[in-house]
Amino acid sequence: MIDFACKQFKIDQVIKCSLGLTKAEYKIFEYLLKHQAGKISTTDLSKKTNLDLTTIQKSVKKLYEKGILIRTQKNMDGGGYVFCYQVKDKSEIKQTVLKTINSWVEKVDFEMREWNKK
Amino acid sequence: MIDFACKQFKIDQVIKCSLGLTKAEYKIFEYLLKHQAGKISTTDLSKKTNLDLTTIQKSVKKLYEKGILIRTQKNMDGGGYVFCYQVKDKSEIKQTVLKTINSWVEKVDFEMREWNKK
Repeated sequence: MIDFACKQFKIDQVIKCSLGLTKAEYKIFEYLLKHQAGKISTTDLSKKTNLDLTTIQKSVKKLYEKGILIRTQKNMDGGGYVFCYQVKDKSEIKQTVLKTINSWVEKVDFEMREWNKK
Repeated sequence: MIDFACKQFKIDQVIKCSLGLTKAEYKIFEYLLKHQAGKISTTDLSKKTNLDLTTIQKSVKKLYEKGILIRTQKNMDGGGYVFCYQVKDKSEIKQTVLKTINSWVEKVDFEMREWNKK
């Protein structure tokens, strides 16, 4: 648990919030972290996470845009392709999270300077 | 307002918590900050803050021990003395607050490293 101003936070909560993820996005993120090796299609993700395909598609798009997921194209035998997803390296994600937390702390620093002037 | 993990905090809350103050102690602290110039006795503090003398005495003791207040001895005409209190310089208090906040952040850092190893 992490303390901040007499409130307690789980690390999961801190990560979820600092990456700005919805509940569904975080569920996908968590699932992919546990299965880092593999690339997975949205259809399979839907089966594994019990989230409907529309939610999955919306969520992986957001996760990809946020730079949390890597997207690869898998060509189908009969032509066409599907996108497959995998999560980026944990160290990279850690850096992103820490950057956001630093920006929160800078705000404290700023407000303390204002407080000092009062 | 300060954001931390999708919760919002007032700077007052952050200060109060990082200094580990009770409601009464914070009330006294706030009063003294607004009247930084003067030294004040516990009796006068009680009148000004509407807190009973026992609470005041317990609170200033804690605030003094925490290094937030300065205590001076005022000799009485008829012999004996009373203690008078004033708050330390805001910059010093700011440093104490920031130190605690840094220790909170170090915890996040630590937990993120643990998370990275999982």
